[in-house]
Amino acid sequence: MIDRLLERIKQTGAPVVVGLDPTLEIIPEKMLTDAAKSFGESPEGAAFAMLKFNREIIDAVAGIAPAVKPNIAFYERYGLDGIRAYIMTVEYAMGRGLMVIGDVKRGDIGSTAAAYAGHLEPASLFGCKFEIWNEDAVTLNPYLGEDSVTPFLEVLKRADKGVFLLVKTSNVGSADIQDILVLPKKKHGEQEGAVPLYEHVAGLVSAWGEGEGLMGTRGYSKVGAVVGATHADVGARLRELMPQTFFLVPGYGAQGASAKDVKRFFDSEGKGAIINSSRGIIGAWKTEGKGVGYVGEAARAAVIRMRDEIGAVL
Amino acid sequence: MIDRLLERIKQTGAPVVVGLDPTLEIIPEKMLTDAAKSFGESPEGAAFAMLKFNREIIDAVAGIAPAVKPNIAFYERYGLDGIRAYIMTVEYAMGRGLMVIGDVKRGDIGSTAAAYAGHLEPASLFGCKFEIWNEDAVTLNPYLGEDSVTPFLEVLKRADKGVFLLVKTSNVGSADIQDILVLPKKKHGEQEGAVPLYEHVAGLVSAWGEGEGLMGTRGYSKVGAVVGATHADVGARLRELMPQTFFLVPGYGAQGASAKDVKRFFDSEGKGAIINSSRGIIGAWKTEGKGVGYVGEAARAAVIRMRDEIGAVL
Repeated sequence: MIDRLLERIKQTGAPVVVGLDPTLEIIPEKMLTDAAKSFGESPEGAAFAMLKFNREIIDAVAGIAPAVKPNIAFYERYGLDGIRAYIMTVEYAMGRGLMVIGDVKRGDIGSTAAAYAGHLEPASLFGCKFEIWNEDAVTLNPYLGEDSVTPFLEVLKRADKGVFLLVKTSNVGSADIQDILVLPKKKHGEQEGAVPLYEHVAGLVSAWGEGEGLMGTRGYSKVGAVVGATHADVGARLRELMPQTFFLVPGYGAQGASAKDVKRFFDSEGKGAIINSSRGIIGAWKTEGKGVGYVGEAARAAVIRMRDEIGAVL
Repeated sequence: MIDRLLERIKQTGAPVVVGLDPTLEIIPEKMLTDAAKSFGESPEGAAFAMLKFNREIIDAVAGIAPAVKPNIAFYERYGLDGIRAYIMTVEYAMGRGLMVIGDVKRGDIGSTAAAYAGHLEPASLFGCKFEIWNEDAVTLNPYLGEDSVTPFLEVLKRADKGVFLLVKTSNVGSADIQDILVLPKKKHGEQEGAVPLYEHVAGLVSAWGEGEGLMGTRGYSKVGAVVGATHADVGARLRELMPQTFFLVPGYGAQGASAKDVKRFFDSEGKGAIINSSRGIIGAWKTEGKGVGYVGEAARAAVIRMRDEIGAVL
């Protein structure tokens, strides 16, 4: 997965992932009312509008962006109908040649983590394999520790898949726990100085990614990290601490980070990170005051603009 | 929610929650093959077997246990069919008078957290409200900090619902991050000594639970904590640090903790905690070598045994 992702980024010249987080506010009114006419003023109607919206975005960015990242929360809120739209979005994006990072932020203990690992491999039932979720990669929450991640690492060893562990998130509240100063365990009997928790987590994530069968062939591991664009100094520091860890970087555009900020998340060859933008791309039609027919075109223009902005600083 | 939960525990005399985590290994073979005959050797067949199994357990424990706790991972692994079984399990349990704690361990930033808060309140669509998930409470992961929890607190202020934040989980890997020594922020200019991260998180959770409209009328907040039964000393320490925080305690039985271990998670009046057992209850029919018709009976007996074991030490 990580090799494929690096290849796609090279082909498109765009280290950009399109966040498919369609709230009802971001979907054109007409698309919603049309969906409601066909499927009812109901979760099913809303979910169909989300899917239709996503398809327009996907059609428009296919070929110029390497990947999309639907955040499952926006689908899960509408129950079965929403989750059906999520699964169909994943399938549709793949059919158009886009890679899919499922932003699910799951995390649980042992056997339960193994159940969540079903996002990355077929379910075994009655002697057969059933493809259910099928994302190329998913995001995970590390708070429960190594044994919550192991079932995913096992999948990664046998399949062309990836994970991105939350290390430092883009929100203000990330400081509450992730920034707290910690005393790392002693190495060689010497006490080291205090570091922010995210550095400790970075060390764990980086070590998990070095396991046998987990390194790709282009210098990066299948085990990546989520590092928010809103903390440029942190990005630079983590880039240094985790030379083999690929970064998924949310927080560009609407959340406030610029191309200059995200430059430091890349390695010296301009590789090693992919920058996510959600509202900045899928909401571009609205920001620019254009109509319902302009959703795809505006998203495409926003991806190209972002590609060029980032390309200019790398 | 927290007042209702305390009342149910009082009524039943059982601070016990039944973990509805039906793996295919724990469901009787005949129940699976029957479901496969009706719904196919497919995720739909598996999901129907899970639902049927859950209904037997629910019928058997209704009236003697206050609550059930389905972990959504076991359902999510089978996609839409699995999630349908989860939602129908929630509905069925409520119909039988059981409270439902959805073990979802979600956590995301701002607007995304608001989407996940849809687990606890109806979705607003086309000017109407749609009940989608409807759990009484859910578990949450605190790693992303306060603004990831705020949308849930807002729901709790206006609705009879609850949350349980992960503080210290029952697995071995919980040590990797939760036990790391941290330096809490200075108070009154004095540097305090290092404490494990879970104590810092406990402080945050406890403070979040003190907000206006979040305290119940019986001494406990609607904002609870997950504290694993496998760490009895930690339980005792956190009970002291968080006098108004109700504990959801997994790890009893199959994971190794005994009644003596969990005694210390309760307050001096024997209140303030509910102990979860999953395999120990839903797998009791199997452990005891009984047949498919014994699923409910064995579960009921296991709940009564657990109630009596815990009752004997409180």
